[in-house]
Amino acid sequence: MPNSASSTAFPLVPRKGDLTRAAIVEAALLAASRGGLEGLTIGTLADSMQMSKSGVFAHFGSREELQLAVLKAYVQRFVDEVLRPAVKKPRGLPRLEAILQRWVAFLAREMTRGCIMIAGAVEYDDVPGPQRDEMVTIIAGWKRELIKAIRQAVSEGHLKPRVDAHQLVFEIYGLMLAMHQDARLLRSADSAKRARTGLSRLIDGARA
Amino acid sequence: MPNSASSTAFPLVPRKGDLTRAAIVEAALLAASRGGLEGLTIGTLADSMQMSKSGVFAHFGSREELQLAVLKAYVQRFVDEVLRPAVKKPRGLPRLEAILQRWVAFLAREMTRGCIMIAGAVEYDDVPGPQRDEMVTIIAGWKRELIKAIRQAVSEGHLKPRVDAHQLVFEIYGLMLAMHQDARLLRSADSAKRARTGLSRLIDGARA
Repeated sequence: MPNSASSTAFPLVPRKGDLTRAAIVEAALLAASRGGLEGLTIGTLADSMQMSKSGVFAHFGSREELQLAVLKAYVQRFVDEVLRPAVKKPRGLPRLEAILQRWVAFLAREMTRGCIMIAGAVEYDDVPGPQRDEMVTIIAGWKRELIKAIRQAVSEGHLKPRVDAHQLVFEIYGLMLAMHQDARLLRSADSAKRARTGLSRLIDGARA
Repeated sequence: MPNSASSTAFPLVPRKGDLTRAAIVEAALLAASRGGLEGLTIGTLADSMQMSKSGVFAHFGSREELQLAVLKAYVQRFVDEVLRPAVKKPRGLPRLEAILQRWVAFLAREMTRGCIMIAGAVEYDDVPGPQRDEMVTIIAGWKRELIKAIRQAVSEGHLKPRVDAHQLVFEIYGLMLAMHQDARLLRSADSAKRARTGLSRLIDGARA
């Protein structure tokens, strides 16, 4: 019954249309990491995929819809590569440290192109709309995950009870942003190493 | 001899042309802090100043020349408000702390619009050219000033001899970038306070 499977919410065999849609999102993610989410146009994307503009429009009714799909795909990848493997570690410091190490590694892999979230935060900070709302939702959600991991490390007795989780997340974010700017603008070779050094110092200062 | 003064390198009385040029740069600085340096166009700038495009072109031969003038004006303002008053403090920790406090205050004042250097770092990180070169020169120069202030604080015996000045500057920059993202994208009300808390912790950790 291969056809009935594809009509459920969890198709066992993806439909051809879904594969095309996924390929468009993949190409758009690559283009956005180079030229920013605002640099995405359905025209240049169609060209790069050797599709017609109407072919792309058949999957995404607007540029905005495509940009939101790119953000969702990015988050999916981030969760798969950073959060999901880290939560297999024991609760507390082992899990928190796994999250931070994987985050730095994820960001380091993006450095030849650029991070669409860090670039997008600047692109959209002053532009109200669904793209900005989505970015705020993503960053706020990720900060909540980090705060949860920090609080678990406190309740496991690995970090000091008085640790200010919000402040710690603010400073962790700062190290990631500094790593991005140093690697991307200044072409520093040691930015990931400096971020890791800063993270170790932060965690050591919070250790019980 | 009012006319001879205006022909020297340090005119006592600015020429009318210089005043117009300064007014254009001022308007361009404001426009760039709202829409980014790449968002600057001579056309919209001329409109906002009720000048003709050719009137603006008489002062700036190209958009690139205007963008570079905006960056130079920004640095001038930063030096006047952050560095120049801070170097009046005694060498060492008093001077370093004055620099950091004034930097946070400068950034906090920019938060309703946005910082053209932080936004520009993302706009130009992948775009070779004179604008990118100028931004790298500015940031590298500012990092050198910070490193100098840290090393003076070490030689005055205020900070530990083993302080890694480059690492400290990397982390200081991270706090400024986190403050900008939190205030601009997430609209956090406490981002300047969090940056100050992080800076105090950094300095306390390096204290002799």
